[in-house]
Amino acid sequence: MMIGKPYLLFLGDAPDQLAAKVAQGIRDWRPGDAVGQFRLPGCGAGVGLPDMTLEEAKAAGAKTLVIGVANRGGVFSEAWKAVLLEALEAGFDLASGLHNLLRDEADLAAAARANGCRLHDVRLPGERYPIANGRRRAGKRCLAVGTDCSVGKMYTALAMEAEMMRRGLKATFRATGQTGILITGSGVPLDAVVADFMAGAVEWLTPDNDDDHWDLIEGQGSLFHVSYSGVTMALIHGGQPDALILCHEPTRSHMRGLPGYGLPSLEQLRDLALPIAQVANPACKVVGISVNTKALGEQEALDYLAGIEARMGLPAVDPFRHGAGRLVDALEAV
Amino acid sequence: MMIGKPYLLFLGDAPDQLAAKVAQGIRDWRPGDAVGQFRLPGCGAGVGLPDMTLEEAKAAGAKTLVIGVANRGGVFSEAWKAVLLEALEAGFDLASGLHNLLRDEADLAAAARANGCRLHDVRLPGERYPIANGRRRAGKRCLAVGTDCSVGKMYTALAMEAEMMRRGLKATFRATGQTGILITGSGVPLDAVVADFMAGAVEWLTPDNDDDHWDLIEGQGSLFHVSYSGVTMALIHGGQPDALILCHEPTRSHMRGLPGYGLPSLEQLRDLALPIAQVANPACKVVGISVNTKALGEQEALDYLAGIEARMGLPAVDPFRHGAGRLVDALEAV
Repeated sequence: MMIGKPYLLFLGDAPDQLAAKVAQGIRDWRPGDAVGQFRLPGCGAGVGLPDMTLEEAKAAGAKTLVIGVANRGGVFSEAWKAVLLEALEAGFDLASGLHNLLRDEADLAAAARANGCRLHDVRLPGERYPIANGRRRAGKRCLAVGTDCSVGKMYTALAMEAEMMRRGLKATFRATGQTGILITGSGVPLDAVVADFMAGAVEWLTPDNDDDHWDLIEGQGSLFHVSYSGVTMALIHGGQPDALILCHEPTRSHMRGLPGYGLPSLEQLRDLALPIAQVANPACKVVGISVNTKALGEQEALDYLAGIEARMGLPAVDPFRHGAGRLVDALEAV
Repeated sequence: MMIGKPYLLFLGDAPDQLAAKVAQGIRDWRPGDAVGQFRLPGCGAGVGLPDMTLEEAKAAGAKTLVIGVANRGGVFSEAWKAVLLEALEAGFDLASGLHNLLRDEADLAAAARANGCRLHDVRLPGERYPIANGRRRAGKRCLAVGTDCSVGKMYTALAMEAEMMRRGLKATFRATGQTGILITGSGVPLDAVVADFMAGAVEWLTPDNDDDHWDLIEGQGSLFHVSYSGVTMALIHGGQPDALILCHEPTRSHMRGLPGYGLPSLEQLRDLALPIAQVANPACKVVGISVNTKALGEQEALDYLAGIEARMGLPAVDPFRHGAGRLVDALEAV
C-alpha cells in the first residue's frame, strides 16, 4: 500500500486549524509532496499552500486527493461527497484515515471502480502480517516511547529524520498510525491490527537494512496507558530498538482519557521500558529525552530541560523548539 | 455468545490423544457438561465418555456438538462434513475453535440456517469490545503470568477455580483463549481482538462483581515472548489483577518458537510483571508460583519447588501434581 504522490490536500469545511492536523503534518514534514490545498466555502483552516481546483491540481501532477481533515459525526457530508466523486471522475486516487471508510460508501466505491482509481483507507491494515519471529535484523532502529499518549512521539521521530537527512545520514521514518501513514504514504496502522500479529507487523515494517541505516519508528500509546499499553509493548518487541527516546509533556494532570491515573516520571518510564526492550535487543540503550514544552515559557522550558539533563544524564530537548540535533548526535554515538 | 450445554464431544479421526486436547480439557474441567464422545473409524483418542451416536446424544439432552480435536491441514474432511451436516439436521448447534471457520463453509452455513442452529466459531470475537477505561471495578481478580507461552497458565487458573468451588468460595474462570472458551462456553479470544480493543475486551470479560468474588483470568503469552507480549500486557492492564500467579516450566531451553531467546527467571518475571500490574492496581501482589513439573521425577519436583520457595518466599506448587490448595490459601490471604 503506497499512496501515489504528489497530493492535493482536502481541507473541506474544517472549522479550525486543529481539525486540519493531518494536512498540517504533511505540509510540515513532506512539503514537497503536496501541490496545493482544496477548501470548501466556510473553511477555517489553511496550510499555506496555493488553493487549487481539481483541474489545476491535476495539471500540476497531483495523483491523490488526501483527506487532511477530521469529519464531523463520522459521516461524509453531501458537500464532501460531491468533491470526492468529482475527484474520482478526474482520475484522482483518494486517501483517508477516518474511521468511516471510503470503501463503505457505495457511490465512491462505484466511481473508483469505473475510473480505475484506488481508495486508500489507512485506518485499516492493507496487508496480512506474519506472527513475529524475533530474529535479529540488520540495520539500526530507534523508537520513541512516551510517559503518556500524544506527548510528541511522532513529531520527535519526524524531526530526527529531517535532521538526519540534512546530515546526509541514512534514515527512514516508519509510520505506525494513520496520520504518519498519510504523511509518508505507507506504514502500518498498528492500532487496527489483530492482536496476534502486532509485533509481526512491526517486524514487517522495519526489515533488514544497511548496517548504518536507522529506522525511526513512530511510537504509539504508552506502557503506562492501560487502554493502549499492549500496542506499545508490541512496538517495542517487534521493533527491536537499538535506541529509545523518552517523550514527555510536563503539564498533564493525568493520563490522557484516564482521570485518576497520574503520569509516571521519566525515570519510571526508563526503568520499565529499557528492560522490556532488552528482551528483544540486549544492546538497547536510552539515548535521549524529548519534551513537548509548548505550555512553558522560553526560560521555563530551558530550566526544565536542564533539570532533566542534570537528573538523568541524557540530552533533553524540545525538538520543535530547539531542533533535534542533540538527539541525532546521541544516535550517532550509538 | 454462550455455547449451549451439555455437549457432545466430536473426536473425529484424531490420530492420537494430543490432538484431542480441547475435548480432554472439557472432560477434565467441566465433566458434567459433556454427555458423550463421538468418534469416527480410526480415531486414536478417547476421553473416557460413552461413545454416542447423534441420536443417542440428542436423547441424552446434548445441545451442541463441540469439535474437540484439531483438524489436519486446516480443512474439513468429507468424513467430518457428513457428521457436522447430520448434526445440524438433528438440531445441534456446532462449536469450533479451529482457524478455518464453520461459517465459511457454505453447506454448513446453509444447514444451520435451515435448521435454526448456531455456528460458534470461537476463534473470532463475537462482540464489539469497548476501549478500556481503566476504572476500578468491584470484586477481585487473579491473573496467571508466565515466563513463556504454554507453561500451564490456563491449567493453573482452572485448578484454582475448582479448589475454590470445593471450598464454597465465589470464583469464576474467565477464558481468554479458544480452548478455555470451549471449556467454559464463553469468553474472549484475545489473540483475535483488534489491538485498540484488547484491554477493553478484558475489562468487559471481568466486570464489577461481589467484593468477595474472584475472577481467575486465563493468561496468554508472556511479557518475555516477543511475538505475543502485547497480548499479555493488555491482559494485565485490562484485568487490573489484585493477585498474580507466576507460572513456569523448568526444562525449556528457549522461548517457545523463538530459538535464541532464553527464558527469564521467575525473579525477572516478578520484577517486570508487578510494576506493570501496579499501574492499573497499585495494591497488586505476587501471591504464588505454579510450576509444571511434568518433566521432573517426584523428588526432583519437590526439591525444585522447595528451592523456589526458599529463594522467593512464596508458595510454589505444581497444581496438577499436588493440588492448587496452597495457591488458593494465598488468594484467601489477600
